[in-house]
Formats: sequence, C-alpha cells, structure tokens
Amino acid sequence: MSTDFTPSANWLSHEYRDLNGTAIETLEEPPSALEFMRLVHISRPVIIKGYQFPALKLWNEEYLGEKMGDRQVSVAVTPNGLADSITRGPDGRLYFVEPSVDKMSMKELLSKLGPNRIDTGEICYLQSQNGNLFSSDSSYDPESDPSSSDFEPLTSDVPRDVPWCSDALGERPDAVNLWIGDERSITSIHSDPYENIYTVVRGEKHFFLLPPTDSWCLKESLYPHANYSRRSPLGTLELIPSPEDVPEVRWSSILDPELPTALPKEVVPIRVTLHAGETLYLPVGWWHYVQQSGLTIALNWWYDAEMRGMSWVLLNFLRNPVQLPSGNGNSIAQLAPS
Amino acid sequence: MSTDFTPSANWLSHEYRDLNGTAIETLEEPPSALEFMRLVHISRPVIIKGYQFPALKLWNEEYLGEKMGDRQVSVAVTPNGLADSITRGPDGRLYFVEPSVDKMSMKELLSKLGPNRIDTGEICYLQSQNGNLFSSDSSYDPESDPSSSDFEPLTSDVPRDVPWCSDALGERPDAVNLWIGDERSITSIHSDPYENIYTVVRGEKHFFLLPPTDSWCLKESLYPHANYSRRSPLGTLELIPSPEDVPEVRWSSILDPELPTALPKEVVPIRVTLHAGETLYLPVGWWHYVQQSGLTIALNWWYDAEMRGMSWVLLNFLRNPVQLPSGNGNSIAQLAPS
Repeated sequence: MSTDFTPSANWLSHEYRDLNGTAIETLEEPPSALEFMRLVHISRPVIIKGYQFPALKLWNEEYLGEKMGDRQVSVAVTPNGLADSITRGPDGRLYFVEPSVDKMSMKELLSKLGPNRIDTGEICYLQSQNGNLFSSDSSYDPESDPSSSDFEPLTSDVPRDVPWCSDALGERPDAVNLWIGDERSITSIHSDPYENIYTVVRGEKHFFLLPPTDSWCLKESLYPHANYSRRSPLGTLELIPSPEDVPEVRWSSILDPELPTALPKEVVPIRVTLHAGETLYLPVGWWHYVQQSGLTIALNWWYDAEMRGMSWVLLNFLRNPVQLPSGNGNSIAQLAPS
Repeated sequence: MSTDFTPSANWLSHEYRDLNGTAIETLEEPPSALEFMRLVHISRPVIIKGYQFPALKLWNEEYLGEKMGDRQVSVAVTPNGLADSITRGPDGRLYFVEPSVDKMSMKELLSKLGPNRIDTGEICYLQSQNGNLFSSDSSYDPESDPSSSDFEPLTSDVPRDVPWCSDALGERPDAVNLWIGDERSITSIHSDPYENIYTVVRGEKHFFLLPPTDSWCLKESLYPHANYSRRSPLGTLELIPSPEDVPEVRWSSILDPELPTALPKEVVPIRVTLHAGETLYLPVGWWHYVQQSGLTIALNWWYDAEMRGMSWVLLNFLRNPVQLPSGNGNSIAQLAPS
C-alpha cells in the first residue's frame, strides 16, 4: 500500500462534496423496496419519517420498567461516558477501552438516567450491540428459543425486520439492538460494516456524519486494549490494561471531531438531529459520532453489507488498511488530548 | 493527485478478484426491476437470456435491406477496422483516430460485410453511437419528429427502453444504438459513463472485460486527434491530423490487451461471448475490448449513470485523472506498437 495517499485522498473528499453537497434528503414516508434499493446504491444518509411500530407509542419509563420487571440486563458502565473509546491510561499510554458490563434491572437503569437521575459518579449506557432484541444467531433460527433475549417482554413491540429494507436487500437483519442512555454518553467516531436503519423512540440523537471518502482523515491506528473494571464489588471503576495477548484494536485517533483542529477545514460533516419517531438510513462505511439530549431510547436494525462487487473493496481501500501505525507513535499520539 | 498510486492500485485489482472471482452470473430470464437494481448496486456484468423483442425474430440481411430501401445511413469507414483507436500517423506520432463517416444505403453496407462481401480494401462498421435509433434529444421529446431517425423504418422492431432497467433506474435510456459490423472491426478498450444493456441480434460479440478497479493498468494518456479522410472523392483513406486547436483525447495506451505483455499477470479479464438473443448488462466504468464473429448485428441501450453518492467520484478517482501524461511521451509510446 502506498503511504503517499494523502493528496489523492484530499481530492476525493473535495470531489465528493462538490458533487453531493452537504445536505441530505428527508422522506415524508418510508420508501418502497425499489426506492430504498436506489438509496442503498447511492449510499448516502436519508431521514425517513412515518416508519411506525408499536414501541413508538407504547414505550416510556413506566412501561419499560413494568414490562421488564426484575430481569437483569447488561449495561455498559464507565466513569466518563466513553464506552468503546480511546482514553489515556494511568501509565500515560492510549488505550481502546471497553466499558464495565454490569447487570441491573430496567428500573435501576432508568433511575440512573435523565434529568431526575440518582447520580452515582458513573455513567450507564444500554448499548450491548449484540442483537440484544433479535439476532440472526438466535431468533431467526426457527429452532431457537426467542425468550432467550434479555428483552423478551419488549420484543412484541419491535418488528424483527424493516419490511422495505428486507425486501430491497433480500435478507433479514443480522441484529436488532436497543439503546438507552442520556447526554453524558458519547459514541466515539467509527464506521460499521452494516447497512443501518436507526429509529429514535424517545429523546433526540445527534449524528455527526462523514462519508467513507473522508476515511483518510480519521487517522485510524492500532491501540492496546483495556477495560473499565472494579478491583472489588463496591470499588470505583479503573482503567485496567488487558493482557498482552489481547489483540490491538484499530480505531480512529480523532477523539472529538467537533474540536476546530480535529479535521481538515474542507472536511465538512453532515449533522443530523433525529427526533422521536424519525428513522435514519446510515449506509455502510459512513463515519458517525453520536450524542443524545436527555433520556434517549433508540432501536436499530443492522443488515449485512453487500460484499460482492467493488463497494466493499473500495471501502477497505479508503480506510488504507495496510501499514497501520501504532496509536502510541509520536505523530499520532499528539492528536489525542491527554 | 498522487503520482505514487500504483502499489495501492495493484492491491485493489487483487482484492477485487479475491472477493469476486473471474466468473459472472447468467440469468435464464430477465430480472424484475428490484432484482436488476440489486445487480446495478453490485455493478458486475451479467448475461441475461430471454429478453425478447421483434428485431430478434425479424432481422436478417434481406429484411434490413428491404425495409431501409435507399435511405442513406452514416457508416464508419477505416483502412484497418480501427475506428476510435490509437494509431501511428505518417509522421511517427500516435493519434486518436476517428473514422471517415460515409453515407450509403443499408444494402450497400451489408454487401461490404460478412463472408460474401465485396472487398474494397476498406472496412465498414455501423457504429454511430449517437442514439441512432432513439435518443433523449429527439424521440423522447413528444414534440420532436420520430421519423428524423436515420433508421425510422426499423424503430418499430426495437423497444425504446428496457422495461426492467427503466423501472429500476427510474429513467429512460439516454440513447439506443444499432451496431452492424464483422470480424474485421475491433473496438479498442475503453469505458463508458453509462449503464449499458447490450443485445446481440445476429452473429456473436466477444467481450474482454476489466473492472474499474483495474483502471490504473489501462494507462490512459492524452493523444492528438486525427481523422481518416480522402483527399479526393475516389481517393484512399489517409490519416489526417486535426488542426492544433482540436483538443487532445484521453484514451488507453493498451492497443491490444490480448498481447501477453499488455497487462500485469494478475489482471485477469472476464471473457464473454454473447450469442444472438443474449443480453449483457455492462455496468458503468467497466473496460471493454470488443470483437465479433462474421456479420454481427447488435443493439444497445445506454442509461445515464448515477452521479449521486460515491460511485462516480470513485470511478474518476480510479482513472487517476490529474497529471495525465502525454501519449507521445517516451515511456508510454513504447506500449503502442508502431
């Protein structure tokens, strides 16, 4: 892989914006399967209004707490709201840090979120991302037990797939996830190997979006792995580096893309605030940095990306995967504030 | 634009083949609009059987000659079968040479093609490529006169659009073209800014295909323009360089991609022989070098490529359009046999 890629890459960022502008389309109702397939081909985010399902009407704090009862669910807990993010460890090195995963009831989770929360000095975010509602490994297998979902009492409120998306792509989603958090949790900038349908049920999500043609300025590097963990059950969360045999994690070195110097001037993001009842189509490979206002509940459907043809190869090419630098090298580490 | 693009580009060619192989799909019947839209998204050639229209049954030499009568049509004439190709001129320089365009009746054209042809020392190819049957400039305008087509007597045998393609893309074709030639005419390797539906009516077409990820090894350069022309009405065709104010033409320096040294070893083409009644979907940006066996009649429908999103930007990026070398520079000229 050439290491002299930046001038060409810069051209890509410029040309993409020149041709596409920085506004995105809003549909007043869900597309047909064919219309959605055209949108997938263009591979540009679209806001979709009017995609209806029971959770949008039924879900509030009281309903969720009652329905879920004493069931224990897995919640990401951090001291700073940065789950799955680059953070400096006590030894001065930068790590990709995963959250502590604590079990609690839905009522307990909700008591720790939003304006009337009990402040514990720790920040909770339900973000298990493993198809916590439905996944292709379990619920789509007719022989599997659908009650195995942590969220089985809520599954009847959520469609297992998005009809216009499944019909377009000719496949069911790989995972359906539930997300519950508040303004203290931030999702660091990353891209996913999925076509993503994302619906806000309560609250607001703020997306900072960059196309795959900007991948070069995300400065992906390899970071050693760590976890937030407690040394004793009632102890505080500490950043604990993982053993050396845990593989390094490839992640963007841009911790806060909103900082004025984080990105080249010409790299202008698309900003989307998604309100309750609105759905975002977020195409494969798009970079997203996500925040929320107050208690926010959201759902998403992840569909496998098309691997045939050129798109997958080009997405990987744009991320320049060979000769990835260490995130703790001199030039890259300066990008990450200590 | 970086000039040090080759190592990355080589990686692209390798990865594309690794993921997609070198075989293509054959459909036993035309796809639905949604199925075709998925194929456009994958952007890989597909052979489609069973796309039926009257010309496939009606057209033979006798029918075409009689229907067209004395109408004069525009035919490309060259001394060597190389219309729109790089050829060395009498001054030793390489030129992009356009054919002479002569007017003749369909009967006269057909008498000069195929196994029983009258040999004139010149090679005819009906290839006007300007929407000679229908074009968006004329026939789609309800106020225009459809009889203005050179081929008006044949238009009722040819659909103005391909239903499953128009429904998928939500647009009508930009141009519908008729092609009539024989094994002496060769179409030099190039790519088009169109989604192309190509049907063979009589004879066989042989396609040598490379994906846009191989664009780097096509070695596009800028060549001065020339025409084949006669100094007197009965004179022989000569290569006449155009005046200096005619813009140079960007074209591949690979004159015969079948030569063993023309392309890097790892760049393996897809070869398709398209028989009468078969249709090829040739996606935007795919490189094609085309030959035919005996008298061959074909039709194609060109649909505008999607300009929104990343595909168009990436197709141009892969062609590395900035700092294009002169085709008459030392290193490039060696690729073109004199």
